[in-house]
Amino acid sequence: MIKARVTVTLKNGVLDPQGKAIEGALGSMGFEGIGHVRQGKVFDLELSTTDAAAARQQLDEMCAKLLANTVIEDYAIELI
Amino acid sequence: MIKARVTVTLKNGVLDPQGKAIEGALGSMGFEGIGHVRQGKVFDLELSTTDAAAARQQLDEMCAKLLANTVIEDYAIELI
Repeated sequence: MIKARVTVTLKNGVLDPQGKAIEGALGSMGFEGIGHVRQGKVFDLELSTTDAAAARQQLDEMCAKLLANTVIEDYAIELI
Repeated sequence: MIKARVTVTLKNGVLDPQGKAIEGALGSMGFEGIGHVRQGKVFDLELSTTDAAAARQQLDEMCAKLLANTVIEDYAIELI
């Protein structure tokens, strides 16, 4: 069994209102020196295969089809 | 300036309906051998400080107060 973590983040230049809201909230809570905040998603998956290359390929396909919107999001795959 | 990534994930044993839905969707899309899927959040932050220990402490406080619900979520801080 292979465990994987997929991290999906907005591409640079894509507006991130959620991140902006967190940035504002942190500022108004008294945290100082906060620059940009951007929010993304993380998926922890278990795959029954034991072949790392096959797992990576399968994850790539999952990202393209379901987990990420590749028009506005980047994704990173990490096998654990 | 320090860049940091905070990853917030549900604690073990906490139900994750969103993860379950993704698990089901991947199965019905024809992906085989998918075990548990769990979804979390990731925050990319910029801090103006250059002191890694101070940054870590500040991030810890942000997680406790805003970024994570420590009753049901774990968080991990990574300085980049």
